[in-house]
Amino acid sequence: MKKTTLIKSGIAALAIAASGLFTTNPAFAQEAVAVVTETVVATTTAVVEEAEEVSAIDKHWEGKTGDLAMFTVNNLWICIAAALVFVMHLGFSCVETGLTRSKNTTNILFKNVFIVCMGLLAYAAYGFNSMYPGDNWTIPGWLAIGSPIANGFGGADEVANLTAEYNAGYTYWGDFIFQAMFAATAATIISGAVAERIKLGPFMIAATVIVAFAYPITGSWEWGGGWLSEDFIDFAGSSLVHAFGGYAALAAVIVLGPRLGKYLPNGKVKPILGHSMPLAAIGVFLLFFGWFGFNGGSVLSANAPLVSLVFVTTAMAAAAGGITASFASWIMLKKPDLSMALNGILAGLVGITAGADSISPWASVVVGGIAGVLVVVSVIALDKIKIDDPVGAISVHGICGNWGTIAVGIFGAGSFVTQLIGTVAISAFAFVFALVTFLVVKAIFGLRVSPEEEEGGLDIGEHGQEAYPDFVPNK
Amino acid sequence: MKKTTLIKSGIAALAIAASGLFTTNPAFAQEAVAVVTETVVATTTAVVEEAEEVSAIDKHWEGKTGDLAMFTVNNLWICIAAALVFVMHLGFSCVETGLTRSKNTTNILFKNVFIVCMGLLAYAAYGFNSMYPGDNWTIPGWLAIGSPIANGFGGADEVANLTAEYNAGYTYWGDFIFQAMFAATAATIISGAVAERIKLGPFMIAATVIVAFAYPITGSWEWGGGWLSEDFIDFAGSSLVHAFGGYAALAAVIVLGPRLGKYLPNGKVKPILGHSMPLAAIGVFLLFFGWFGFNGGSVLSANAPLVSLVFVTTAMAAAAGGITASFASWIMLKKPDLSMALNGILAGLVGITAGADSISPWASVVVGGIAGVLVVVSVIALDKIKIDDPVGAISVHGICGNWGTIAVGIFGAGSFVTQLIGTVAISAFAFVFALVTFLVVKAIFGLRVSPEEEEGGLDIGEHGQEAYPDFVPNK
Amino acid sequence: MKKTTLIKSGIAALAIAASGLFTTNPAFAQEAVAVVTETVVATTTAVVEEAEEVSAIDKHWEGKTGDLAMFTVNNLWICIAAALVFVMHLGFSCVETGLTRSKNTTNILFKNVFIVCMGLLAYAAYGFNSMYPGDNWTIPGWLAIGSPIANGFGGADEVANLTAEYNAGYTYWGDFIFQAMFAATAATIISGAVAERIKLGPFMIAATVIVAFAYPITGSWEWGGGWLSEDFIDFAGSSLVHAFGGYAALAAVIVLGPRLGKYLPNGKVKPILGHSMPLAAIGVFLLFFGWFGFNGGSVLSANAPLVSLVFVTTAMAAAAGGITASFASWIMLKKPDLSMALNGILAGLVGITAGADSISPWASVVVGGIAGVLVVVSVIALDKIKIDDPVGAISVHGICGNWGTIAVGIFGAGSFVTQLIGTVAISAFAFVFALVTFLVVKAIFGLRVSPEEEEGGLDIGEHGQEAYPDFVPNK
Repeated sequence: MKKTTLIKSGIAALAIAASGLFTTNPAFAQEAVAVVTETVVATTTAVVEEAEEVSAIDKHWEGKTGDLAMFTVNNLWICIAAALVFVMHLGFSCVETGLTRSKNTTNILFKNVFIVCMGLLAYAAYGFNSMYPGDNWTIPGWLAIGSPIANGFGGADEVANLTAEYNAGYTYWGDFIFQAMFAATAATIISGAVAERIKLGPFMIAATVIVAFAYPITGSWEWGGGWLSEDFIDFAGSSLVHAFGGYAALAAVIVLGPRLGKYLPNGKVKPILGHSMPLAAIGVFLLFFGWFGFNGGSVLSANAPLVSLVFVTTAMAAAAGGITASFASWIMLKKPDLSMALNGILAGLVGITAGADSISPWASVVVGGIAGVLVVVSVIALDKIKIDDPVGAISVHGICGNWGTIAVGIFGAGSFVTQLIGTVAISAFAFVFALVTFLVVKAIFGLRVSPEEEEGGLDIGEHGQEAYPDFVPNK
Repeated sequence: MKKTTLIKSGIAALAIAASGLFTTNPAFAQEAVAVVTETVVATTTAVVEEAEEVSAIDKHWEGKTGDLAMFTVNNLWICIAAALVFVMHLGFSCVETGLTRSKNTTNILFKNVFIVCMGLLAYAAYGFNSMYPGDNWTIPGWLAIGSPIANGFGGADEVANLTAEYNAGYTYWGDFIFQAMFAATAATIISGAVAERIKLGPFMIAATVIVAFAYPITGSWEWGGGWLSEDFIDFAGSSLVHAFGGYAALAAVIVLGPRLGKYLPNGKVKPILGHSMPLAAIGVFLLFFGWFGFNGGSVLSANAPLVSLVFVTTAMAAAAGGITASFASWIMLKKPDLSMALNGILAGLVGITAGADSISPWASVVVGGIAGVLVVVSVIALDKIKIDDPVGAISVHGICGNWGTIAVGIFGAGSFVTQLIGTVAISAFAFVFALVTFLVVKAIFGLRVSPEEEEGGLDIGEHGQEAYPDFVPNK
Repeated sequence: MKKTTLIKSGIAALAIAASGLFTTNPAFAQEAVAVVTETVVATTTAVVEEAEEVSAIDKHWEGKTGDLAMFTVNNLWICIAAALVFVMHLGFSCVETGLTRSKNTTNILFKNVFIVCMGLLAYAAYGFNSMYPGDNWTIPGWLAIGSPIANGFGGADEVANLTAEYNAGYTYWGDFIFQAMFAATAATIISGAVAERIKLGPFMIAATVIVAFAYPITGSWEWGGGWLSEDFIDFAGSSLVHAFGGYAALAAVIVLGPRLGKYLPNGKVKPILGHSMPLAAIGVFLLFFGWFGFNGGSVLSANAPLVSLVFVTTAMAAAAGGITASFASWIMLKKPDLSMALNGILAGLVGITAGADSISPWASVVVGGIAGVLVVVSVIALDKIKIDDPVGAISVHGICGNWGTIAVGIFGAGSFVTQLIGTVAISAFAFVFALVTFLVVKAIFGLRVSPEEEEGGLDIGEHGQEAYPDFVPNK
């Protein structure tokens, strides 16, 4: 409309130039006519081209309202699922702050805010095309160098990328935003494990490197059509997202060392309590909520039977994990432990993620239930070997990510051996890449805050900003 | 694809066996051929059967993309609505912890985590088939014994349960997960009313019994095609969910008694303040948000006029309840009371739930507005008769659940008398069932923590885990 | 069904009356027959009319399941988007309480609860029809007097308003609820800026006047087909919602004055810290989540390419704003400031809102990135001129709302000059209207609490209700 107005004024100007000026100053008028004509032609061409683009999309669907409706509902679900996965980042922020001390709250929140922002941008700038290289592999099946996502489309490309020609379930943009929301998750998992002692700047650098470069590599192996994509099954990322994050976290924790005062000289483990159980619970409930998008969206369409089944297996595995972890902690720790119950829900969710579309509902209860026990055992075991993970991220995402992947070889459509190979390969790559990254960052910048800063809290040390200045702290 | 690969290797093996080995060791080769042939045949059969199943669903929709799209969008809405109802459990957790004291926070959160997990599993194991018995009534119209949900489908069943043959609005799985999210709500309502003094184990047992066995009974009366289903109207559960929970809570509170120090010997009522108004507010806003799924999903399809109307009536009743409760508290308590305003929103939501699809928008303002006044009056009145309900659950869910059901007989399509009979029947059943359950549990296990534990808080007493160890408590 | 039952009983009664009574008391029987006949006729007519209405909607879609599916998915998205915009009100509540002191928490939450409730009701009673007047302008293109929304439809109207005849993207109800959720936002923005010192009652009056009468006026200029609607572009409300709220907030703050102790006699600015960084972070993440509905729903259909693009531009602008604000604060304030990072995300979101459907993804990074720097500079600059805005609302919504609107003239389809005129006109109107409103309210009721109440906190002063009675406050 606006451009049409422009054309109209152009034509009006042309008329004025042609009539009025022509008589007084023929040379100037001629030039003016030429300039205006050129503008009018250029603008008209642009308008026509734009109209043709639009009509090419319309033409794609002409006489196919049923198909268009299917495509629209499929793409809508991918977008809504992306928004739900976004909520998981809030969930992680709440769990991580809730399960740590109040003096490090601002710092943890800042890290989470940074990661989701940086993760989205890095995935747009490099990750998406590195993870889904199509035919542009550098080392076929193993590695692809990324590039920025397209900024706009024209003509035929537009039709292809914004209709079912790209994919029956989503447009190019829908695809990107859903996958981008996944990408930042890996670094967020690390964030929890290294909390309360890592320097901010070096963490930001390492997290960026891992999200931008490492996550898309293993991602490409399976979802990008790489060497694992033929027989290995990891529906929504028990290995590709969660074990990846969990083992990267393990490497980070090994390089970083435990928090001061956690492992006492006499061999005892001093529990360092989280500062807000409501925050931790809010976080887990929001993660559960977001997981409906994480797993449900991984159907990559709104396919009714599959999306419904995924909702059922996801919820039942989570419920089973919460129950078994509650009772496991009740037996092993003598008291029903809320943080274990919460981690049990997460364990069940991580566990079912690889097979949410191929495991039956009652088998999902078994998968989630085993994950709930595993997480309790793993949290206790890691403390025994002095791996200090304040929020249990290595157990929840690493160990249960492995378990969930293997479970597809037991209860689902996968082969046990293939599943084992896949999850070990992904975990090992994540561990080694993160180990090297954190060692290099440590060598260059240092990785750990001073003991004084750790004692006083990173909120003051790194940000000069307390999280709760109005309340008297309990020292 | 994987199975096809298997068949291919099988055929290759068969060829090798048939050609190579045949010449060197005829007997062994023959046996090998037999084994491989058997495998190939079995696998081929499985693949063909699976393909037939899939094609049966595809065939169901052949040439009907418009119908398929309708079914897909309907089912997607039911799934999303289930996720929104899940959020209500987080809402309840926040409201209940926010309106109680910090020393009982871990305990309340643990109960909420347990209930949602147990509720989902119990509903799968028994409740769903007890509530929707089809033709399998034990006492026709009154009682059906439940059984576990189906774990998988084959052949014709698969088509029926996963297409519009089951229901035009959802698959079997979509139906289950939406209803399962409702089920745990009843016990959650009780949880708030008995907070700060109930023993954990006995509560878990009683809550499980009520969710698993009682909730599906009254549910079956109306939604399962029982004796109330002909003329009684309870769209999304003002009575079946909320009054049920509210009256079960009333029974529990009567058996349990008030918190220590609440009703003083001189006849005065000592207000026991909640410990976090932000938590309470977050909870109510999340409940409001989730209610769009609770009521909107109860349309049982994405029907455009009905879903939109339900969104409007739900929001306007909530808004009216919030406003009238604010002003009622301002008049009756001299100050505008935030917890009353919050409970007013919930009252409006509970009130409109029975008639959200049949009451006009402006009538919904009247229904919600009256609910907002009712809840303030009821909370004050219950304190007068020493019914100690820390979060106002009996008033919000019980009294306003009754009101909302009756309101359908005034403003909606229902008959006043029928609505009255229905809500009284459901409330009475819930009350009696819960009374017996809690009395039995009390007799066997005891129901109340010791006065010392109540004084010190259930977080330490039941879990050995403070909710806020970093802050100095205000004694 | 119920009415059919009624008819059946009517006919049965008629039969009894006709046969039994007729013989014993002819006169009475005749009268009875007349009465019953009348009832039956009336009820039958009602049932038939209702059936005809329903069938008119059905007839509208007859043989057009593809079209019906498109309409259904479009309308569903508008409804879900409305629910997401609702979540933004929770987000605002959390940000505002988190960034202010604990002694004013109950008061801020109460104001937010009031605004969302009142906003929905006022928009139903007046605003919707004032903002979308159709042909009923009072001053054409500039002002329309509102009226209550329709309470029900009959016959042809019903078909028109509840099918694609009203709009291809939504029903009348879907339209209303989506727009109503937007309406309350403007007053919520003011609420943050005037926090910690405004009297409750007068604020409630001023906020109601502004939401009910002012917001629909500027809204009608653009979205209601008024004088700005031809060439000015404000896709989802950078100006119409955010700059409107931001400049109304500026006027309110000027009338109200700064908080006690904020600007010291020696010219120094004393930072007044927020009391809960987790609350602030939860709020921003929820606003980010809700913004997918705010911008995505503003497509006004589930159009796949557009909704997907809007999700991408929205998320990338938010991410860019978070990153640039983090680094800007790091440079300008020496430390990476969490509240600046959070406000940077909001700045990016506000900035992209006007052009989310017409700005390319990488340009959206530029728009959001600039917004992130702008908000840091603006917050610091406002403090220099003693405009005390506790949460940065004027900078986030006012300044970045202006920027986002103008950005459409740089990166999008709009004309720079037109965009400038539009955003200045809207901001100026909001400022002047709010200035007059707050001055009048101040003159009649007073606007500011006493210094003693401000010192002691508005929670006690206005509500007699502390937000955190269980924790020892840090004075």
